Amino acid sequence: MNSQTPDATTLVILGATGDLTQRLLMPALYRLYTRGHLEGVSLLGYAEKDWKREEFLAHLEQALRRFVPEFDPAVWGGLRERIAYRAGDLSPEKLSVLRADLTENALFYLALPPDLFGQAAEGLGQAGLNGDNQGFRRLIVEKPFGYDLASAEALRGQMHRFWREDQIFRIDHFLGKETTQNLLVFRFANRFLEPIWNAQHIAQVQITYAETLGLEGRWRYYDRAGALRDMLQNHLMQLFTLMALEPPSVWDSEVLREHKVEVLRSVRSIPAAQVDDFAVRGQYAAGSLGGQAVPGYRQEAHIPPASTTETFAALKLYVDNWRWRGVPFYLRSGKRLHADYAEVALQFHDVPMRFFGPKAPGCNWLVLRMKPRESLELVAWAKIPGLALEARPVVLEAPYEQPGDAPYTAYEQLLLDALQGDRTHFLRFDEVEWAWRILEPVLAAWKLGQPEPYSAGSEGPLGMARLMDDGHAWRPLGGD
Amino acid sequence: MNSQTPDATTLVILGATGDLTQRLLMPALYRLYTRGHLEGVSLLGYAEKDWKREEFLAHLEQALRRFVPEFDPAVWGGLRERIAYRAGDLSPEKLSVLRADLTENALFYLALPPDLFGQAAEGLGQAGLNGDNQGFRRLIVEKPFGYDLASAEALRGQMHRFWREDQIFRIDHFLGKETTQNLLVFRFANRFLEPIWNAQHIAQVQITYAETLGLEGRWRYYDRAGALRDMLQNHLMQLFTLMALEPPSVWDSEVLREHKVEVLRSVRSIPAAQVDDFAVRGQYAAGSLGGQAVPGYRQEAHIPPASTTETFAALKLYVDNWRWRGVPFYLRSGKRLHADYAEVALQFHDVPMRFFGPKAPGCNWLVLRMKPRESLELVAWAKIPGLALEARPVVLEAPYEQPGDAPYTAYEQLLLDALQGDRTHFLRFDEVEWAWRILEPVLAAWKLGQPEPYSAGSEGPLGMARLMDDGHAWRPLGGD
Repeated sequence: MNSQTPDATTLVILGATGDLTQRLLMPALYRLYTRGHLEGVSLLGYAEKDWKREEFLAHLEQALRRFVPEFDPAVWGGLRERIAYRAGDLSPEKLSVLRADLTENALFYLALPPDLFGQAAEGLGQAGLNGDNQGFRRLIVEKPFGYDLASAEALRGQMHRFWREDQIFRIDHFLGKETTQNLLVFRFANRFLEPIWNAQHIAQVQITYAETLGLEGRWRYYDRAGALRDMLQNHLMQLFTLMALEPPSVWDSEVLREHKVEVLRSVRSIPAAQVDDFAVRGQYAAGSLGGQAVPGYRQEAHIPPASTTETFAALKLYVDNWRWRGVPFYLRSGKRLHADYAEVALQFHDVPMRFFGPKAPGCNWLVLRMKPRESLELVAWAKIPGLALEARPVVLEAPYEQPGDAPYTAYEQLLLDALQGDRTHFLRFDEVEWAWRILEPVLAAWKLGQPEPYSAGSEGPLGMARLMDDGHAWRPLGGD
Repeated sequence: MNSQTPDATTLVILGATGDLTQRLLMPALYRLYTRGHLEGVSLLGYAEKDWKREEFLAHLEQALRRFVPEFDPAVWGGLRERIAYRAGDLSPEKLSVLRADLTENALFYLALPPDLFGQAAEGLGQAGLNGDNQGFRRLIVEKPFGYDLASAEALRGQMHRFWREDQIFRIDHFLGKETTQNLLVFRFANRFLEPIWNAQHIAQVQITYAETLGLEGRWRYYDRAGALRDMLQNHLMQLFTLMALEPPSVWDSEVLREHKVEVLRSVRSIPAAQVDDFAVRGQYAAGSLGGQAVPGYRQEAHIPPASTTETFAALKLYVDNWRWRGVPFYLRSGKRLHADYAEVALQFHDVPMRFFGPKAPGCNWLVLRMKPRESLELVAWAKIPGLALEARPVVLEAPYEQPGDAPYTAYEQLLLDALQGDRTHFLRFDEVEWAWRILEPVLAAWKLGQPEPYSAGSEGPLGMARLMDDGHAWRPLGGD
């Protein structure tokens, strides 16, 4: 799966004057350029703003100076030579001016509001920019892919009018993260894991992504999406499938994605009448974080004072297959929680005999920590030094990064993968589809009623405890 | 197994003016006293030296000042009140004077040269000091228990004339070590281990005890014993049985010792004609350690210049049972090696598919480190940060001791266990017997020929490599 970066490729960014381009795409492209990965790649910005190339470049430079700490004018001097700009809307007429600018291969990055994805894909197709009879033509689509199952299917229909599935690269930037990719490496490069990676030995799995951040200006998108769509349907569902999938016998992006879909398809359906047993939603109320008072969600600028959008969502999933039957996977994510903390944590069952004192419940945790720092942790039990044969927990720990490492950000990874045609870390449509399918009953139930308020700076709504099976409890945000 | 310290007990040390008493027993007793464990216990020194009590006390004080860094005259002022002294030899007549000094219970510690163990046990018996019809009478015996199978059996015969097996506490001070006891706790308090603790998943086990020290004045004993008898027959064999034993269903000292013997009894016999495939011996030649030139073993004071005593011994054992069939256990110990290093290390088999680059052999090691510091380590594989999905080893590590811990030394542990009658950490005769039985062919073969010389400060004799099965290699002294 390590293809070469192709020669003569044009990366067209639709929505080139927007926030995503500034904050994420350009910094990633700047770094890829610095690292020598953009040989033969030219960049073409496209947006409605009637700018000259110089205006666009000045805009990009401003963004790079802000978002790239190691910004170097000399590097920029080289990179800017590769960048062109065209103004236009998403109509086929306007888009067809791009044809003259394309080199042998072309990649279209839809850095657009989600409701424009379909229109852009069709426009590009109608302008004849989708054909890959000489070089390749690829489409990179940002999240969210649809708003629910029906809209995702409709969007697929629109896209597939002009684009084959293998031309479409659906981004879930969690799949470009180091620690996400390490889930697979760690699972399948370590002999001691596979034999115990099943319901016989694992009692529960908790996947947590907690933020202290609030809306950060994303109110327009967020108030319509909410935590379930923003984080769980895509990012956490992806971490879940990587934890749960059956080991592939060959390493191949189609096989891997097939195995991921198989997990999603074996998730036990959430009964419409029992949604509250499987899902919890919350919305932050006023509170305090780091000693500072922060307003509640409904007091945020632009948010309707009666908004029922959830800023916290938790989910319990069961996978009804040979490996996982009976093991709950708990997923949760929220804003304005008391810590920036993310991890995937597995708890093993108790040992059959507790020889070593009543203090020892005997449960091991394996924790793949993502925030605040990336690390690997195994909570084991060892003797307490002293006369008695009593056990206590000790944490066997290793940092993920080591001195001298040169990690790539998620957007660097994924842009390069898309350039090279590696689809391993992109979503196939059926992954999106089945993730929506799992959530349909929850989305339907949450059209009514209200999320439970929780204080900003807390661990989340108290009601999240009701998801827990006997003997389980949410791990504290911040670890053991 | 946590009995109470009994009231009114006399601990009689036979050989009370000797080296063991000074270096190990008295410092341990001093600490037990400081920690409040000697309530009701009085100490009685016995030796041939015709000393007055005051002379004996002065001798002990000198030793304590040397070997107990935290020595406090005020504490000593209290402890010395508990100590008496009687002079005499091992004849029943002389020993019988002790009778008047004993309180309800009595423990006799044979801190004597090994060739006097039998005589002392008989003398005490003939003097009528073995009867426990009111309180208890116990005998603590130091290592080595015999010089080979025949002499061990003869010694048992002598001891059993007057002492029942359950009165005899055979010391192997490794069993009193924190990290040895943790082998059992770690194995049976952690759910993730038992399912993979077998030949299906474990490729090899290495048990290493390496010293930079040379003879340290123990020439008389050592030149007759050698490394195989001094370290492997007892200490390393004990670590081996603790690693290999079947999990007990109840926690009971007899059950545990039964399981240990079961391991020894299932060790594959070493064929007399193939000893060299299972055992390696070496003797240090002149070399250098820490930049200092050190003499070879045969140049050491008092050592015969043609001595064939081995100062390094290595052994390969197979356990032919359901759990371990085919897994080699490698044991080695030596003097004047290049590091003070001890560990028990298990290597897991490779993963079936090496997806993550040719650099990844995929083998995990679990290491229980004893020297230079006590720690738990799991060598796992994680992704190398960067574009490629390649793995590298990372060490998940935890120190064994934590701030605030109050560990006990091996002699503190064992003295208290013997006072309290807990035999878990003492050797039953059949453990000693079977350990000798396993070594019989090696002892016989080593009566002839020469050990291989190795330079002081090296990793040992080159020939040790010949024990290794395909794909195995001795771990470097100092770890990965």
